[in-house]
Amino acid sequence: MLELYHFEAAANSMKPLLCLHEKGVDFVSRQLNQDGKRWEQYSDWFLKINPDGQVPVLVHDGKVIVESTVINEYIEDVFPGGVSLRPHDPYWRARMRIWTKYVDEYVCPALTVIGANFATPFAQKIDKAEMDEVLSRIPLDGPRRKWETVSSTGYSEEELADARRRLGVAVGRAEASLGEHDWLAGPAYSLADVNAYSMISGAERVAPEALNGTASPRVFEWLRRMDERPAVKMVLASYGRRPAPTRAA
Amino acid sequence: MLELYHFEAAANSMKPLLCLHEKGVDFVSRQLNQDGKRWEQYSDWFLKINPDGQVPVLVHDGKVIVESTVINEYIEDVFPGGVSLRPHDPYWRARMRIWTKYVDEYVCPALTVIGANFATPFAQKIDKAEMDEVLSRIPLDGPRRKWETVSSTGYSEEELADARRRLGVAVGRAEASLGEHDWLAGPAYSLADVNAYSMISGAERVAPEALNGTASPRVFEWLRRMDERPAVKMVLASYGRRPAPTRAA
Repeated sequence: MLELYHFEAAANSMKPLLCLHEKGVDFVSRQLNQDGKRWEQYSDWFLKINPDGQVPVLVHDGKVIVESTVINEYIEDVFPGGVSLRPHDPYWRARMRIWTKYVDEYVCPALTVIGANFATPFAQKIDKAEMDEVLSRIPLDGPRRKWETVSSTGYSEEELADARRRLGVAVGRAEASLGEHDWLAGPAYSLADVNAYSMISGAERVAPEALNGTASPRVFEWLRRMDERPAVKMVLASYGRRPAPTRAA
Repeated sequence: MLELYHFEAAANSMKPLLCLHEKGVDFVSRQLNQDGKRWEQYSDWFLKINPDGQVPVLVHDGKVIVESTVINEYIEDVFPGGVSLRPHDPYWRARMRIWTKYVDEYVCPALTVIGANFATPFAQKIDKAEMDEVLSRIPLDGPRRKWETVSSTGYSEEELADARRRLGVAVGRAEASLGEHDWLAGPAYSLADVNAYSMISGAERVAPEALNGTASPRVFEWLRRMDERPAVKMVLASYGRRPAPTRAA
């Protein structure tokens, strides 16, 4: 049995959802409740599956695989049939991995700050004793500090500006890359596109100064092509908070 | 032709050096000068090879591969013979990738702070106009900010303490993992060991409160096993600043 524990189809949870749908691999969706005050990823039952309290998690015949980017390479290793999302040529495969790594290490932390900032009004309303109890159950220091920050001071203007600046740098890099070939990391659609789209497809709405069609026409054309993919539409319709985006002209 | 541009055998540069030596793959070493005031990684000739100004870089028949962790997967993709450093079983392969990712995302930034801090006395003596000229040539914001920091204020005590704390967290995670199997990410030696050893083999000297034989006996036994590997000895003898470490009892 193949089970995926995930949140709604966005960011890290979208990556394996999109990979599985692109490849047509059957799986059982275990969508965690993301409503405020549930914190299901830190519940006792989920911490037994992933002691780090992070989603997504793939469970394949009882074997637990964590980390969305690793999960997608695992899916390619175990289900090489169907649409290939990993180039056969080692050079283009390396280019794909350079992009997935860049998204994980440079883009994701910036988007985490921008995204978490939206949770500040909600988090600051939570009773302090209750929030302290939640914080005490968060295993990893990164997410714990994030929730400590948004439930107290919030991120500073400097931190938010730097996160938007980093997102802009990444969009510029994507724009240059898409000037060289049709897809983000080479001539073929790959896990790099899956990874980057999952992270930045909603950035136009939350950071329009960093991602907009005027400054980044190739990135926008690529986003529109991605929006139209049947797997993207299916994933957003099944697990998304909203349907596939309508991009500004 | 296979060429590796690298610094001395430590941290990210050690990863592909060790991988190539373990597998017995012939290559041409292009070791950059690391002496102060050279900044060879930001020179015009090197920026033509890697516009990001980062080492190591593998150049294979003219194709440029960057990012040490991606380089090592590329070496396994192109030279699958010899010692296999990537498990054939997809589950253990995923575990290997979870570890290399963790080292890159969590351990490396902490060690960068600890390591860069040692460069503070040297960097603060550099003439400001000269340093500004160097800073203007550093393409990536991460390394540029690092050198801005060490050449001016240096890292704060809080930042250094947090880096040592993070290193301690990672050592604790390695200690637990080595309690489950002989090698860091599973029953077999893999790129996870190559990656982690390259980063932390010198940490006993610079952060003994985070890495010492009393608190982490399994990590120490693993480090000693690694120290004795012929490839490790060869790499340190050929490209290292010092020979293989003698571990404290």
